[in-house]
Amino acid sequence: MGRLPEAPLLLLVVTVSFLTGPDVHAGKILVFPVDGSHWVNMNLLIQNLHAKGHEVTVVRTATSWYVKEHAPHYRSITVTLPQAIVIEEEEFFVNFLMKMLEIKKEGVSPIGFMKFYWEMLNALSNIHQQASRLGVEILENRTLLQSIRDSRFDVVLLDPGLPVGVLVAHELKLPTVFNVRWITSGEGHFVVAPSPTSYVPTSGFAATDKMCFSERVKNMLFYFLNTCIDKLVVCPHYDRLVDKYFGPDVKFYHLLQGADIWLMRVDFVFEFPRPTMPNVAYIGGFQCKPSIPLSPELEEFVQSSGDHGFILMSLGTLVKGLPTEITSEIAAAFAQLPQKVIWRHTGERPGNLGNNTLLVKWMPQNDLLGHPKVKAFVAHGGTNGVYESIYHGVPVIGIPLLFDQFENVLRLEARGAARAVDATALTRQNFLEAVQDVLHNPSYRSNMRRLSALHRDQPLRPLDTAVYWIEFVMRHKGAAHLRTESYKMPWYSYYSVDVCCFLLAVLLILKAAVVGSVWFVCFRLCRRRKPKQE
Amino acid sequence: MGRLPEAPLLLLVVTVSFLTGPDVHAGKILVFPVDGSHWVNMNLLIQNLHAKGHEVTVVRTATSWYVKEHAPHYRSITVTLPQAIVIEEEEFFVNFLMKMLEIKKEGVSPIGFMKFYWEMLNALSNIHQQASRLGVEILENRTLLQSIRDSRFDVVLLDPGLPVGVLVAHELKLPTVFNVRWITSGEGHFVVAPSPTSYVPTSGFAATDKMCFSERVKNMLFYFLNTCIDKLVVCPHYDRLVDKYFGPDVKFYHLLQGADIWLMRVDFVFEFPRPTMPNVAYIGGFQCKPSIPLSPELEEFVQSSGDHGFILMSLGTLVKGLPTEITSEIAAAFAQLPQKVIWRHTGERPGNLGNNTLLVKWMPQNDLLGHPKVKAFVAHGGTNGVYESIYHGVPVIGIPLLFDQFENVLRLEARGAARAVDATALTRQNFLEAVQDVLHNPSYRSNMRRLSALHRDQPLRPLDTAVYWIEFVMRHKGAAHLRTESYKMPWYSYYSVDVCCFLLAVLLILKAAVVGSVWFVCFRLCRRRKPKQE
Repeated sequence: MGRLPEAPLLLLVVTVSFLTGPDVHAGKILVFPVDGSHWVNMNLLIQNLHAKGHEVTVVRTATSWYVKEHAPHYRSITVTLPQAIVIEEEEFFVNFLMKMLEIKKEGVSPIGFMKFYWEMLNALSNIHQQASRLGVEILENRTLLQSIRDSRFDVVLLDPGLPVGVLVAHELKLPTVFNVRWITSGEGHFVVAPSPTSYVPTSGFAATDKMCFSERVKNMLFYFLNTCIDKLVVCPHYDRLVDKYFGPDVKFYHLLQGADIWLMRVDFVFEFPRPTMPNVAYIGGFQCKPSIPLSPELEEFVQSSGDHGFILMSLGTLVKGLPTEITSEIAAAFAQLPQKVIWRHTGERPGNLGNNTLLVKWMPQNDLLGHPKVKAFVAHGGTNGVYESIYHGVPVIGIPLLFDQFENVLRLEARGAARAVDATALTRQNFLEAVQDVLHNPSYRSNMRRLSALHRDQPLRPLDTAVYWIEFVMRHKGAAHLRTESYKMPWYSYYSVDVCCFLLAVLLILKAAVVGSVWFVCFRLCRRRKPKQE
Repeated sequence: MGRLPEAPLLLLVVTVSFLTGPDVHAGKILVFPVDGSHWVNMNLLIQNLHAKGHEVTVVRTATSWYVKEHAPHYRSITVTLPQAIVIEEEEFFVNFLMKMLEIKKEGVSPIGFMKFYWEMLNALSNIHQQASRLGVEILENRTLLQSIRDSRFDVVLLDPGLPVGVLVAHELKLPTVFNVRWITSGEGHFVVAPSPTSYVPTSGFAATDKMCFSERVKNMLFYFLNTCIDKLVVCPHYDRLVDKYFGPDVKFYHLLQGADIWLMRVDFVFEFPRPTMPNVAYIGGFQCKPSIPLSPELEEFVQSSGDHGFILMSLGTLVKGLPTEITSEIAAAFAQLPQKVIWRHTGERPGNLGNNTLLVKWMPQNDLLGHPKVKAFVAHGGTNGVYESIYHGVPVIGIPLLFDQFENVLRLEARGAARAVDATALTRQNFLEAVQDVLHNPSYRSNMRRLSALHRDQPLRPLDTAVYWIEFVMRHKGAAHLRTESYKMPWYSYYSVDVCCFLLAVLLILKAAVVGSVWFVCFRLCRRRKPKQE
């Protein structure tokens, strides 16, 4: 629509002026991050808060993978956990992936699957036990607690994937802001907003918002499963602490639900529309940014693709290897393409790699996705990669491997912007067919460009939205007016079960009274008539 | 918190740049307004859209009270309704108010009340019948319809208080934006978002979001009542049209629920926090603006109040008279105050008016509310006045008279920013006591100032939010990605009743199978043992 204002330009103007607004004086922010890929996001947010003049302090454990003790943009508090279970990131995820692929490909006996599931729950429980120990170490250490208190923080910013920070915030009587997509064992919305399972797919169940009956049944079962895991595996670790330090009147779940602002790493070009709450601000894709020029070597390689352009492939930061039987199929398919391929790969080099394929250990993913010659992105469907592809409008061939990647790829598929390939059934033929479909069917690209245009058309950049609401909470010491406290009601009151029972009882009594009266009158009339007839 | 950025300044910078952003080319907007005080809001929005270069066409009836045929900032389409019932605004509302006050004061027999209620429902039905006739006139008039079609509008902007515009939008296959607080016969959220009656007060029932059991029962009953009125009195007028022009597959309610963007005239400093949807944008208080200097005469009167300051009183645009027994009590109370009083009053002049009180037929309400010497605002609790008092941070003495005014004043009371006075029980003593309480208890003013600070601290000015989303819908031909279509599900699917029944049935069958098996095994064991024992 040529007659109407162009959104990205508009956006840029708003954003720039917002950032060059009034002088910003320092607030003090205490951060409880989650390690791994979550930290990539949190770190970006912290860098921006630091750049706006705020003083950021990050709480980390001595065995942290990613969160360094020293950094130019934050101070840190390092807590050493007794009997810390040091989980080797690479080993952990590669083993987990191998097992998953094996089960999906070879099948497994019910007992074998139960054993695997049990191990998974055990791993989940261990992770939360570690996190809750961090809480114990802080709440028991009076010197540390006093020094944190003396720092007079304005707000606690935390990733509630491991929600121990809410306990510390409660102890310090500080408002909280969540940088969230996952919380305890499910998606964040399920804790804060009404989530009808009839059209809101549950975490772990790859479905769209338009489900048939059997899908809705499965969705409900997944919801029950998630709730059970939450209540039986995750929450007990924190419940114990809350009970010990704050007494029986405080509930851990209420501390979660009572967060002032939820910065939700979601955008509705990606997520299906669903109910939300006034204290949820959407920052999906806040890590995205315009691309910058490539290095001369990479630019030369990319330019050598000519009109065919190039394809990008990366399976994310956490999973560094795929079984060779899969990688060699992928390599064989790539070798048949006229396009060039840049493949981020750290495992064994496939023997059948084509001349058109460049293996790299690291690549400037954002700059490559923003390059005019990029044609498609072969990705595992991690959230960061998905948002980068949306931002730059690059269609996706998804090979989901773990966790939410299946749901993420499905969301893009539902918008006609991606094609999924099952890793366990991947052959050079079906993979090549999928890649060629995405390359040659223009609908994938045009759908992704539409998503990109919608995603970029927001009153504020998502990153500015995040900073705005953190500063808002600091300015006003919370955001109570945006936050319902209905979660404090008993469930039967929240769902109006008591009211419905009462009204039903009144109706039944009324009905009984009416029927009784009619019966009584009829009885009297009959009695009066009978003597006359006699 | 001195160390943190000041919100209003920030807001101003964002806003100004937003408005002076890129060149704006004209979009074409078809508007279906609602007459009366609703038009004041819609007109302001139209003025802004016009100022941004858009071409606005307003659909009005020949008997419209407020919507003029000719205006510099819009074109108009005037439709003459056959057998139009010309309702005289002043007469209608004054009569209605008199009757209401009489009933509340004197009491009335149940039959008398039923008669009054019946008349009210009749009036409501008449209003919607008139509105639906507007739809018939447009949809039947092929020349008019073709000329509208030829105008190639980009969007239909409408106030769904009288929702006939959704039918025309459906006929023209155009996206819709609602400028809404009231819709058919309730509050807009109740149609678009989940609204648990356990903590969301229903339209017509003055309660907060923290209700005791009996209040929750009443709230549920009001919800049923509203639903009945909606389904039996309001919707049939439009259902008939939808059925006639679009066939049985289209439902009127789905047309309502399918609006692309809901510009909700609500702000959560005023409204209680409650579930919402991604396609709801909040523009509460979008009519508010900084005050400008008063006329020399008014400034002189105001300055003569010295340190005592002055009080403002207005009961809105629609209700032009109160019974003299009430106005003389108010005048007597005012006469006892050291403050000056400016009273917007068009009825009979009270005989006992004090020297400190200035009666005016019109006043620059916004500029007076923004004056440094204003101490309190005596108001009926209409939405516009409430938002102006929030914007300027002036505490309120509320005399609610009609409709939502009771709920509005209660919302301010719940925040400690207002005191309500019952018009039917108003005496000079209790009115004076309420005014003096608000004047001398600093909590009212500080609470209102807190609301004001929160209200002004938004990423975009509410008016800019409104314009932004209207332009968004024009740019992208709708906002389908923000809008759920779950309303198209049958109710038993939406509420997962079918899924729950199915799962319950499976559970019962499983239980029966287990019990049956156990019983069978026991029976066999018993039969085997018995012969042995014999």
